[in-house]
Amino acid sequence: MGSFLDKLNGAADRNDSLLCLGLDPDPTSLPSGMRYSPEGVVEFNRMVIEATSDLVCAYKPNLAFYEALGSRGLAALEKTLADIPAHIPTIADAKRGDVDNTARMYAAAVFDTWGFDSVTVNPYMGMDALQPFLERSGKGVWIVCRTSNPGGAEFQGRLVRDGDAHVPLFELVAARAAGAERAADVGLVVGATASDELGSIRRLAPSLPLLIPGVGAQGGDARAAVEAARTGPVVINASRSVLYGTSGADAADGVRARAAALRDQLNELRGAAQPA
Amino acid sequence: MGSFLDKLNGAADRNDSLLCLGLDPDPTSLPSGMRYSPEGVVEFNRMVIEATSDLVCAYKPNLAFYEALGSRGLAALEKTLADIPAHIPTIADAKRGDVDNTARMYAAAVFDTWGFDSVTVNPYMGMDALQPFLERSGKGVWIVCRTSNPGGAEFQGRLVRDGDAHVPLFELVAARAAGAERAADVGLVVGATASDELGSIRRLAPSLPLLIPGVGAQGGDARAAVEAARTGPVVINASRSVLYGTSGADAADGVRARAAALRDQLNELRGAAQPA
Repeated sequence: MGSFLDKLNGAADRNDSLLCLGLDPDPTSLPSGMRYSPEGVVEFNRMVIEATSDLVCAYKPNLAFYEALGSRGLAALEKTLADIPAHIPTIADAKRGDVDNTARMYAAAVFDTWGFDSVTVNPYMGMDALQPFLERSGKGVWIVCRTSNPGGAEFQGRLVRDGDAHVPLFELVAARAAGAERAADVGLVVGATASDELGSIRRLAPSLPLLIPGVGAQGGDARAAVEAARTGPVVINASRSVLYGTSGADAADGVRARAAALRDQLNELRGAAQPA
Repeated sequence: MGSFLDKLNGAADRNDSLLCLGLDPDPTSLPSGMRYSPEGVVEFNRMVIEATSDLVCAYKPNLAFYEALGSRGLAALEKTLADIPAHIPTIADAKRGDVDNTARMYAAAVFDTWGFDSVTVNPYMGMDALQPFLERSGKGVWIVCRTSNPGGAEFQGRLVRDGDAHVPLFELVAARAAGAERAADVGLVVGATASDELGSIRRLAPSLPLLIPGVGAQGGDARAAVEAARTGPVVINASRSVLYGTSGADAADGVRARAAALRDQLNELRGAAQPA
């Protein structure tokens, strides 16, 4: 079995893309004519996947947008997962986190039952609670490190003692993630709008894969995100800014055009970031 | 609409019980003759609910144990929720946490789609990320504060600056939860095996509702948990230690006997803890 990073790098190379597309069917934003229903969600996602599967390095369904439709929404997620081409890696954006046998059941759900290639997890319970995810060879585990919501620093940014130094909590999380024993590939989730923090995390963990949401609709700094790709794998996620904006017969063309434009913009920044 | 706490206190009074029963159908522990399948889970839960609905103050389905069965497992959860008597409050043990519109969708899932009375959430993203839960009048929000897994202190126990003092991160979380503007009722999740921490949280927030897992199978300190009930509402959860241990024709009687014994033990401790 190949590693998660092999699959991610393979898709990124094949499509020449750092762009991960979030599959977040939003009841308030779907193109006119598409309903926020289990059937509508499958149809919308199929349209999006067909329009973008040669442009992205990964797809990231956000489980909240399926859970809000109940068990039938999760059935729609299962159909969508079957529609994603096998060579493109998937990220379960689930932010799961719990202790011992509960964590094992969450890992079984995302990896075995749903067949995701990777998952986002929450570190608050400590690294031992993440063990059922980390021990999964061939899978990827993205540990939430620094989020870029207005209150993201309220707890993540607090200074804590680490050895002789005082560092923000999120840097301690990054260091523990980088040093964790694991069979899975481990990466960090770092919001693009937290661009200073992104830089300090990159210096701390130069080669760790980073999943960077917030480019696009959340106003994140694409330049800082691409800069982080110089020393290690980076997956830059956009959701709303690519998914929404055109309707009816133009919906698919619009999604494709926005995805292509963002991929190309990221590649231009990447080219400019390379030493001449 | 009554408050969540009104409903919780009503059930606790009616059944003279601090005991919350976790509905965690575990594939490795189900009574012989019951299968870990969507149908088996509904059947098992129905047996458990019928055997205990006059003994508990709440039921707490742990979503991981349903997600591991995929969308059909979530459909089983929906059937189980319909089997819970209307006067007994429900806790979605989901540990959800994410930013802005994702948090809104998670809140819609647990409160609107599934109709839970309350939910457990993760504070790592900051209090603003919990706003979509906290703004729900009539609902309850249990913020994970201190877990009692071996590595629970790795991040939660770090000293952080709060004003002029240095306090463990979990105490800062407790203080922010106690001070949060909200329409929902807010409580804290504190593991029973972290009994020292339970005491310090109680001193910090004397009247905040506490959800205390870990009594029973996890070897938690029932005495410390009951002590915390002297100044404010306490919900003491047991799952495995009540659900499992008898099989076949004795399964239901065994569940009832273990639930009754634990409820009575907690009540005895509570009686002993009252000033004479």
